[in-house]
Amino acid sequence: MYSNPNRKEWLNLTERPTESLADLQNTVLDIFKEIKQKGDVAIQKYTSLFDGVQLENNCVSIQEINEAKDLVPTELKEAILVAKNNIEKFHTAQKTAKVEVETTVGVTCWQEKRPIQKIGLYIPGGLAPLFSTVLMLAIPANIAGCNEIILCSPPNKEGKMNPVILYTAALCGVTKIFKCGGIQAIAGMTFGTESISKVYKIFGPGNQYVTVAKQVATNFGIAIDMPAGPSELLVLADETCVPKYVASDLLSQAEHGADSQVVLVATNKSIIEPIQKEIAKQIKSLPRKSIAEKAISNSRMILIENKIEAIEFVNEYAPEHLIIVAKEEAFYLENIQNAGSVFVGNYTPESAGDYASGTNHTLPTNGFSKNYSGVNLDSFMKAISFQKITSKGIKNIGKAIEILAEAEGLQAHKNAVSLRLNDLI
Amino acid sequence: MYSNPNRKEWLNLTERPTESLADLQNTVLDIFKEIKQKGDVAIQKYTSLFDGVQLENNCVSIQEINEAKDLVPTELKEAILVAKNNIEKFHTAQKTAKVEVETTVGVTCWQEKRPIQKIGLYIPGGLAPLFSTVLMLAIPANIAGCNEIILCSPPNKEGKMNPVILYTAALCGVTKIFKCGGIQAIAGMTFGTESISKVYKIFGPGNQYVTVAKQVATNFGIAIDMPAGPSELLVLADETCVPKYVASDLLSQAEHGADSQVVLVATNKSIIEPIQKEIAKQIKSLPRKSIAEKAISNSRMILIENKIEAIEFVNEYAPEHLIIVAKEEAFYLENIQNAGSVFVGNYTPESAGDYASGTNHTLPTNGFSKNYSGVNLDSFMKAISFQKITSKGIKNIGKAIEILAEAEGLQAHKNAVSLRLNDLI
Repeated sequence: MYSNPNRKEWLNLTERPTESLADLQNTVLDIFKEIKQKGDVAIQKYTSLFDGVQLENNCVSIQEINEAKDLVPTELKEAILVAKNNIEKFHTAQKTAKVEVETTVGVTCWQEKRPIQKIGLYIPGGLAPLFSTVLMLAIPANIAGCNEIILCSPPNKEGKMNPVILYTAALCGVTKIFKCGGIQAIAGMTFGTESISKVYKIFGPGNQYVTVAKQVATNFGIAIDMPAGPSELLVLADETCVPKYVASDLLSQAEHGADSQVVLVATNKSIIEPIQKEIAKQIKSLPRKSIAEKAISNSRMILIENKIEAIEFVNEYAPEHLIIVAKEEAFYLENIQNAGSVFVGNYTPESAGDYASGTNHTLPTNGFSKNYSGVNLDSFMKAISFQKITSKGIKNIGKAIEILAEAEGLQAHKNAVSLRLNDLI
Repeated sequence: MYSNPNRKEWLNLTERPTESLADLQNTVLDIFKEIKQKGDVAIQKYTSLFDGVQLENNCVSIQEINEAKDLVPTELKEAILVAKNNIEKFHTAQKTAKVEVETTVGVTCWQEKRPIQKIGLYIPGGLAPLFSTVLMLAIPANIAGCNEIILCSPPNKEGKMNPVILYTAALCGVTKIFKCGGIQAIAGMTFGTESISKVYKIFGPGNQYVTVAKQVATNFGIAIDMPAGPSELLVLADETCVPKYVASDLLSQAEHGADSQVVLVATNKSIIEPIQKEIAKQIKSLPRKSIAEKAISNSRMILIENKIEAIEFVNEYAPEHLIIVAKEEAFYLENIQNAGSVFVGNYTPESAGDYASGTNHTLPTNGFSKNYSGVNLDSFMKAISFQKITSKGIKNIGKAIEILAEAEGLQAHKNAVSLRLNDLI
């Protein structure tokens, strides 16, 4: 608990615990090298080693997908459709039209977006199947028009993949699904193997090995969605907030992991104690209580009464998730510079964005909202620029190009224009 | 020269010479470490070591900028203004409006772009001052609204920076200019020193040390514009092209460096010999003849008579610059998937885009146009998503969120919704 902290303390208060993953790099590089050389044989070896199962074929069959469909409860299927519908609407709205300008008479420039043709999605294994991440990645990839959307996720010891993952992937247009996890999956998508296609960009969360593997993949020409880090939530609230709602939101962040970052910036002192009491009350009945307790014990409650300082602190912290519940909502919305996804008002819990409001939940954490966007439609596309110049156009700008090229010492650049201008005299 | 090559040969024909920069990584890491610890003292040391000059103060003064203004010839200033005007028009047109959708009744989602607040531009030294890159980076940064736009470029042995660089930087809204180059400049912008501000994203070209330093910077949380590689041009032409123009364009690419990639895809055999003859003729008078000769000797002339195969080859090659001069222009424009910047028709030389048409010249090379955009307005911004849900909205999607959160084993996520729904019964 900090009360109107001095700006000098902000650096401390905005700092995240950093974990160096450099130790893992050599392990990852070795596995990459082996998979590059040996392909599926090496994939099989590491699936056996890390996932404890020998797979003859790591490609999920249509039959397996059909079986999975029958295993997903109807109620869950309906909920998935509600989420899918909203995510589709919001990401479809992000389509951008061709931008075209005649910059000088006869000089037309335009920009168009084209899909990245081959996309790889990584979905981690573990106890809970992260099918919501399948929705968040496959839906915009499909709207963007990516030709190949492959998905890798580790099999369980019986060599099966969670049916909800399979159902959601098939529903959202994933073109091929592989039972393959961890470093070997990222390496497989980086180089391609006999079974797994090489992709151009890899998306999705994962443990520290996957994080390092994605970093390493960028050294081999693969793009990735964004750097990873523990999830985080900052709630910016005043006396108009409902303390039990704020407490529930902070706890929903806290249950993600012991390293989750949970921050409350209160602009009014009166709300802090009620929120703390509500946290203590609600935490008791959580199945993930021990995880949430660890995260909460590292959480920060900060009183910043001045609204300008409050938003400046938030911008300095650059939260992944930001909840704003305040009379001064409009002021904060206008002045927020750095945040992944923003939740406004008492009826907008973070879990709405995690699942079903329509926004994406793959977001920059660890302060990366200062320099990265969350995943959105453009994450699956590239902007290409075009120009077409008429004979009149080259007459209009040709002289300037000649002078500029000459000043940079690039005579052949100048010649390319001079030759054309000479023909047009 | 290849005639209708078999698809199996494409892999070879689209391959770029790869240079491993892993050897440089340790040198770069050591300098980064030292600059992180010692700040300006270490910057001074390396400026002295690499640039051969002892600087008391590496920040360019207003007086130096004013002096530079007087040193730039009027004709060059005017040409710079022509380029600036066009670049401004095209990049201003790339501004995107807020995207807003009510995904479900009571659930409003929107996306807004905000500038990346602190930007660092790197401009290499060398014989020719790359002021055109200052235009290409500072203008969109300024349009985006970035608060701090700093520029680093190495000083000469007299401790001065090229006046055209200084003039252009001041003209385009760069907020601070530092006489600092190479690894030490990238490290300085990564960590910040007493003089140089820490930035969030670094843009700009450089030699192999700068390339590795930018890669290393990403491990410290800094975003970069894109991975680097030698410049390249592919010309896709049929019998409607003017061979001497095509030759001049190929040569303007070839003069960049001995490692420049120069490719001609001809859909008609008749144009190849005339183009080759023109190259031989024009190359003789180039000041950078020996460089251009090396690049041309590695160039590829490929005949692909089938238009579908031709565009598929181009997409597989994924050129940085693509010139299209063909009757089937519309077909190619519709089907191009992977290219940085496209130049259409006989009067659109690549040098137009390098300087003054209005498009950006900082483009993905080395096949990276498969997964990266060239620099554009969005490169200086982040997309933030927002959502605001009313009591009616949470009633509409709350049940779905509860089911989804439960299925992922996240009870606190469910509780955050349940608490609110209970209050609304």
